[in-house]
Amino acid sequence: MARDILIRNARPLGGAPVDLVIRDGCFGTAGGALPTQEIDAAGHIALPGLVEAHTHLDKTLIGMDWFENRVGPTRNHRILADRKAKRELGIDARRQSARQILQTLPFGVLAIRSHVDVDTEIGIANIEGVLETREALRDLVDVQVVAFPQSGMLPREGTLDLMDAAMRAGADIVGGIDPATIDRDPVRHLDAIFALADRHGKPIDIHLHELGELGAFCLELMIERTRALSMQGRVMVSHAYCLGMLEPSRQQGLIEALAAERIAVMTVGSPAAPALPLCLMRQCGLTVASGSDGIQNTWEPWGNGDMLERAKYLAQRNGMTNDADLAETARICTFGGAEAMGLAGYGLSDGDAGDLVLVPARTLAEAVALTPQKRTVIRRGRILGRDGVLVEDLFADAKTHA
Amino acid sequence: MARDILIRNARPLGGAPVDLVIRDGCFGTAGGALPTQEIDAAGHIALPGLVEAHTHLDKTLIGMDWFENRVGPTRNHRILADRKAKRELGIDARRQSARQILQTLPFGVLAIRSHVDVDTEIGIANIEGVLETREALRDLVDVQVVAFPQSGMLPREGTLDLMDAAMRAGADIVGGIDPATIDRDPVRHLDAIFALADRHGKPIDIHLHELGELGAFCLELMIERTRALSMQGRVMVSHAYCLGMLEPSRQQGLIEALAAERIAVMTVGSPAAPALPLCLMRQCGLTVASGSDGIQNTWEPWGNGDMLERAKYLAQRNGMTNDADLAETARICTFGGAEAMGLAGYGLSDGDAGDLVLVPARTLAEAVALTPQKRTVIRRGRILGRDGVLVEDLFADAKTHA
Ligand SMILES: [Zn+2]
Ligand SMILES: [Zn+2]
Repeated sequence: MARDILIRNARPLGGAPVDLVIRDGCFGTAGGALPTQEIDAAGHIALPGLVEAHTHLDKTLIGMDWFENRVGPTRNHRILADRKAKRELGIDARRQSARQILQTLPFGVLAIRSHVDVDTEIGIANIEGVLETREALRDLVDVQVVAFPQSGMLPREGTLDLMDAAMRAGADIVGGIDPATIDRDPVRHLDAIFALADRHGKPIDIHLHELGELGAFCLELMIERTRALSMQGRVMVSHAYCLGMLEPSRQQGLIEALAAERIAVMTVGSPAAPALPLCLMRQCGLTVASGSDGIQNTWEPWGNGDMLERAKYLAQRNGMTNDADLAETARICTFGGAEAMGLAGYGLSDGDAGDLVLVPARTLAEAVALTPQKRTVIRRGRILGRDGVLVEDLFADAKTHA
Repeated sequence: MARDILIRNARPLGGAPVDLVIRDGCFGTAGGALPTQEIDAAGHIALPGLVEAHTHLDKTLIGMDWFENRVGPTRNHRILADRKAKRELGIDARRQSARQILQTLPFGVLAIRSHVDVDTEIGIANIEGVLETREALRDLVDVQVVAFPQSGMLPREGTLDLMDAAMRAGADIVGGIDPATIDRDPVRHLDAIFALADRHGKPIDIHLHELGELGAFCLELMIERTRALSMQGRVMVSHAYCLGMLEPSRQQGLIEALAAERIAVMTVGSPAAPALPLCLMRQCGLTVASGSDGIQNTWEPWGNGDMLERAKYLAQRNGMTNDADLAETARICTFGGAEAMGLAGYGLSDGDAGDLVLVPARTLAEAVALTPQKRTVIRRGRILGRDGVLVEDLFADAKTHA
């Protein structure tokens, strides 16, 4: 199948129009005749693939019966409801992860980090299911799998061994969750997951909902361990609401300390959670990524996985309306996520992987504000979607899988 | 043109399927043969028309050049930028208001309250423009026009006279804005607009962004004047962020006092502003409405005017995920808005105006969470839109106008 392609009249990041060439799966204008396959981008904005840095592919209910949510208000209520749903609704991690990936592909989401539950009821079945999907759809999207102790790790004996098994089965990243409020022992929790990551030579990604000074203390513990194990650039903290709850000098000191160890922070810009200080985080050189978190599951009934819409949520939560600020939130949902996830060859420059989404908008700010749906999606030179719709014939296999 | 219609297999508010009949513009199953015009609602959810209780039809830039937003962060920066844009961009209130109405019609928005600027630069030109549109599109949508002193009233001499002229020209409601922080004299500001409303026998709708105890004090002044002039059920406060900033007993006392005078509160659920206590407001019997506020203008680059999406924003801002809570936010964007705006004959019962939107969703919660776009819209028995698209032939006139 011909994968070389010439894309005429595209505007990288909303800049001046250029022609882009993808050859042998990578961007590159030098060498050889122009590809015979070409498309007219009609002046649309070219972005590298959108990056979903935090979701839960194994939990989505897309395509299943409507789940009537009567779940209580605390995180613990939600964890229990989630585990019950896994038992009773037959949420097949392999099938559901494929459905979510196919739903977000026409938006141009070409890289996904998914936390995947590991617990003493399901063991590593969900990890295996998502890894199967990753393999089946590897030509369409890059998937990173986090072994995630959703139900708690220390309080549920055997969970740490299962996480170890998940890593041996092929998970990419060691997960963690609320070392204090869920696991009740921040030092032991963090020591355990840093040791596991160190043993496997893998990165870490920790859900941290702890509030205020408790969250700040947990961040300090992570900073110390990142430094001690030389894991700079390999640790991500997801949510980190506490960063939006501290007095200014404390806030800035902590952000600088995170940046110094190159610990990335992922925020979804949730309207009901504390807003993170995006401008300050940027000024301090912190790597910031974003994600959809759960999509249409027992936690949250909404979500479509469009990372341009996510950029809009980030701007709205932070009261940002300027074009420059909206371009920055678009950056978080592309380059920021790629950096946090350690994606190789991400970008639109010569030599980068030939992944691209064309968005019909006049400016990058408009792309964020109005999230136009009729996008064209190209992966390693191959057209996957046009006008917001997947190219049918390429996806017979993928759809069978879903 | 035949306006009688039989709608088979619709589920009012997500309940059991029924057949609905609209005759002579109103719902009514009794009398006569069934209408010959019929449609199959296929089990879709039937809602009365969605209600947009707060927008600015004269400010939208829909269909115009992209406005690069470099506006400063304060409300005053934004008011200045807004006035400059009116001068320099040629924002035609007649044309732009029609564009917004036609954009939101396929969502099923059939009643709109719009604040329309009155100031010493443009006089009442915007009022006249929106009134022209209202007249031209009166068969499609109900529009209420608020004479709105966006740039301030007392500090800009002549504004009050212009508001009086706006009311004489046909505006429906007297507007007001931040009696303390913009107009610098809460008592004089409120006395003036209550007197104007009393003189014209018209309702009041006040933008109140004042924070904390300052906002609470302004609400008290409004409550006193509503009682003194017997304007119960005829006053709306828009935003009222202060209600989300008070300690619990103060908060509840004020909400009860507003409810006692039947003063309605409009909230957009803005992610960057204080969240209003929707549950408490409901428990206290307060009438709550919602709106899009500005759509794609110099204040905010986003917004599509879909009031089901607005219900989602309300739920998200309040951390609500239960089905029952989502049904409640849908109620705010339909019945709540209708009550606050004093719409006559609003609903799906016999005798109510034959306005209806059919939403393809399994439950009302799903309609809010996923905001399906392929809706059917019926106005006084006439089909205006199908599958999310306006019925072409009916709109030649309307589109010429826009
Ligand atoms: Zn998560
Ligand atoms: Zn407004």
